[in-house]
Amino acid sequence: MRHVLTADQFSRPDLDRIMQRAAEMETILQQGGSKMCDGKILGALFYEPSTRTRLSFETAMMRLGGNVISETDVTFSSQTKGEVIEDTIRIVGGYADVIAIRTKVKGEAKVAAHYSPVPVLNGGDGSGEHPTQSLLDLYTIVKHHKIGEEKLKVAFVGDLKYGRTVHSLAKVLHQFDGVELLFVAPEVIQMPSEYVNPSDTIYHDLTDEVLKTADVIYDTRMQKERFEDIEQFNQVKNAFIFTPEMVQQMKPEATLMHPLPRVNEIMQKVDDLPQARYFEQALNGVPVRMALIAEALEI
Amino acid sequence: MRHVLTADQFSRPDLDRIMQRAAEMETILQQGGSKMCDGKILGALFYEPSTRTRLSFETAMMRLGGNVISETDVTFSSQTKGEVIEDTIRIVGGYADVIAIRTKVKGEAKVAAHYSPVPVLNGGDGSGEHPTQSLLDLYTIVKHHKIGEEKLKVAFVGDLKYGRTVHSLAKVLHQFDGVELLFVAPEVIQMPSEYVNPSDTIYHDLTDEVLKTADVIYDTRMQKERFEDIEQFNQVKNAFIFTPEMVQQMKPEATLMHPLPRVNEIMQKVDDLPQARYFEQALNGVPVRMALIAEALEI
Amino acid sequence: MRHVLTADQFSRPDLDRIMQRAAEMETILQQGGSKMCDGKILGALFYEPSTRTRLSFETAMMRLGGNVISETDVTFSSQTKGEVIEDTIRIVGGYADVIAIRTKVKGEAKVAAHYSPVPVLNGGDGSGEHPTQSLLDLYTIVKHHKIGEEKLKVAFVGDLKYGRTVHSLAKVLHQFDGVELLFVAPEVIQMPSEYVNPSDTIYHDLTDEVLKTADVIYDTRMQKERFEDIEQFNQVKNAFIFTPEMVQQMKPEATLMHPLPRVNEIMQKVDDLPQARYFEQALNGVPVRMALIAEALEI
Repeated sequence: MRHVLTADQFSRPDLDRIMQRAAEMETILQQGGSKMCDGKILGALFYEPSTRTRLSFETAMMRLGGNVISETDVTFSSQTKGEVIEDTIRIVGGYADVIAIRTKVKGEAKVAAHYSPVPVLNGGDGSGEHPTQSLLDLYTIVKHHKIGEEKLKVAFVGDLKYGRTVHSLAKVLHQFDGVELLFVAPEVIQMPSEYVNPSDTIYHDLTDEVLKTADVIYDTRMQKERFEDIEQFNQVKNAFIFTPEMVQQMKPEATLMHPLPRVNEIMQKVDDLPQARYFEQALNGVPVRMALIAEALEI
Repeated sequence: MRHVLTADQFSRPDLDRIMQRAAEMETILQQGGSKMCDGKILGALFYEPSTRTRLSFETAMMRLGGNVISETDVTFSSQTKGEVIEDTIRIVGGYADVIAIRTKVKGEAKVAAHYSPVPVLNGGDGSGEHPTQSLLDLYTIVKHHKIGEEKLKVAFVGDLKYGRTVHSLAKVLHQFDGVELLFVAPEVIQMPSEYVNPSDTIYHDLTDEVLKTADVIYDTRMQKERFEDIEQFNQVKNAFIFTPEMVQQMKPEATLMHPLPRVNEIMQKVDDLPQARYFEQALNGVPVRMALIAEALEI
Repeated sequence: MRHVLTADQFSRPDLDRIMQRAAEMETILQQGGSKMCDGKILGALFYEPSTRTRLSFETAMMRLGGNVISETDVTFSSQTKGEVIEDTIRIVGGYADVIAIRTKVKGEAKVAAHYSPVPVLNGGDGSGEHPTQSLLDLYTIVKHHKIGEEKLKVAFVGDLKYGRTVHSLAKVLHQFDGVELLFVAPEVIQMPSEYVNPSDTIYHDLTDEVLKTADVIYDTRMQKERFEDIEQFNQVKNAFIFTPEMVQQMKPEATLMHPLPRVNEIMQKVDDLPQARYFEQALNGVPVRMALIAEALEI
């Protein structure tokens, strides 16, 4: 069955095929949607809140003409009554044709897939994976850059230690020739070595050189509670806030990304600059998830 | 773009056109609905609970053949994670074709509209506005009375100081010739002067004269916590509870309205009297919101 | 109006007709659903959480081509604001074409039906009734056993005193000739005498004889808090946990049922045995609720 569980599962041809399909879905969106999932039901099980991921999954299914049943009440779900995920998934998998699931527990999406009678799309499993996010991130890069054909410098900035988003995207990008990754973060929240290739570079500061030469900058939030020494946090936090002046140093055709929600790490004044593509990035969730739903349903 | 943000925005011709459109929508409802919004999506963002407003917006969209994505989980929304409304609205406005929003913060619907790529319908912004309620209130009056053609006496009763519903409706009704407004409330919760026209009258008691001569009585709940002196509240509260005996004093063709929910300010025994039109009023939310969605989508 | 309020309301011909209709709905499901409820709306009011019941009602309506409006936010509903069920139901009954309701209060579904302008399907009213569960339970038995034609031994096991599920199902099964009910439970949670027929048998232990001769075993959870003496609970609890060894003693064609969610009263290792039909039972909720919705809408 065509589950989507981890960023690792996709070969380079898989990625190319999904990017192609997402582009076709974008055309379908511009034409007002499709009825190719008419009569089909997406089961959206979100045991951890996630407005953006859930609503874009639901939108994707509806734009394909399908319907959605949702469980978003974290406190009162069967899960809380003590039901194991295996039982929930067997039943909701009997109601729906495809399931999108977010859980608080790493690895639970994989367990769900094992017991599900229908394809499972992992919408984030705790500190584990968030593969559909990686694919929409990749799609955003593909739309604006010649990845795999020309040299591409992608800088990851912020909390690289705990962010599942950057881990998964790094793995995906390593599949493309000519991509050089720059990991820009204080030591305490640097990229774990398992995600670092020999050709990648580690930075501790967001230098002018990085700003001026990167084709893509992928920013993430730094959370105060990750730092043992609060002084250390206060020291670095401002260096990682994107101001209009900083973004204007970037190449005109470069892309500034962020998985959102942001708090204050990118100033609102940046939003109107041409490099700011984080809203477009969020919206790319719809065509990419349409592609994944269509693949899952073998449509 | 055709946002609906405030009761002020509608000229008299606007109001006439919307009333006409709502009447057409009522015919469509009787015929089992329409497919004019087939493939369209309403984004319902309710950051403050509101069963009635939300469900009637959703029903309106579905009766037009469209779909709905909802965010109703107040506690766990992106908003709570610290995301600003500007970011949320840009993204949900990229998923949906039209947005209905309720927020706790006065003025936030206007901010939302400024950043939204699609029309925004204000479903209530804190102590601010609730324009779609005013329009369904007006529609209820239009259906049963010759407003603008003959003299019409409309009495507002209850908490006139803090109720956004009565403020907005007063502004709308002032646009019609021959409408005389009576504001019936204890001084402490009387209508703020900015909403009172010279031709309007202030009452502190619900007199027999008001009951017997009003064409429309619009009742609202008085909340104990609005009174500084609890004694004062206890003194007046019973005088403002509508009993069957009181309602039978009203003209047979008069209309008793209430935005609901009621607690005990209208006795259940009143429900079957011909003047009691508050349930019909609530149901009028569907054709009126269908009209507003259709206008917003320029359909 | 065709409300579904109690298991008592169905005559034997009613039950036969609904079982027949559910079987037709199962065929429709296999063919990818229907559009017979196109344009219709189900109002799902769940004032007590119930993932399974709610999602199967919603799935049923969607598989018939209809739409769903839901109120599942227990904490913030109009109900919590102090609105009486009579008012809520009049209004939601004006938005939707049929209502499925679950409440915490016994008897409230009946009150709702009295005020509703559209049919009400009781999805569980506190310690009262859960008639749609009884019908899907019956449907599961009908699919695998010749009930009413041959002798059928049905054993109820677990908490028979407080479980509305077993009360309703016992009443339904008593309408069929040749059905013998066995009530297996410690005295403190035995079946109340009003649900016991002279031909039924009381057991205090899950004996080998019961295991080996029952055609259907309907297990339910025993809740610690029902026992006054915790020692008594600890004494019996293990005797009522279904192990693979126990289930293998059952007849090969026998059926093990459970309303779910289970906690530990049936071991997961039992799931793959042929007698384990509790997941199928849960999925039978969809065709049975499709049948009830179609009957309610007179389609």
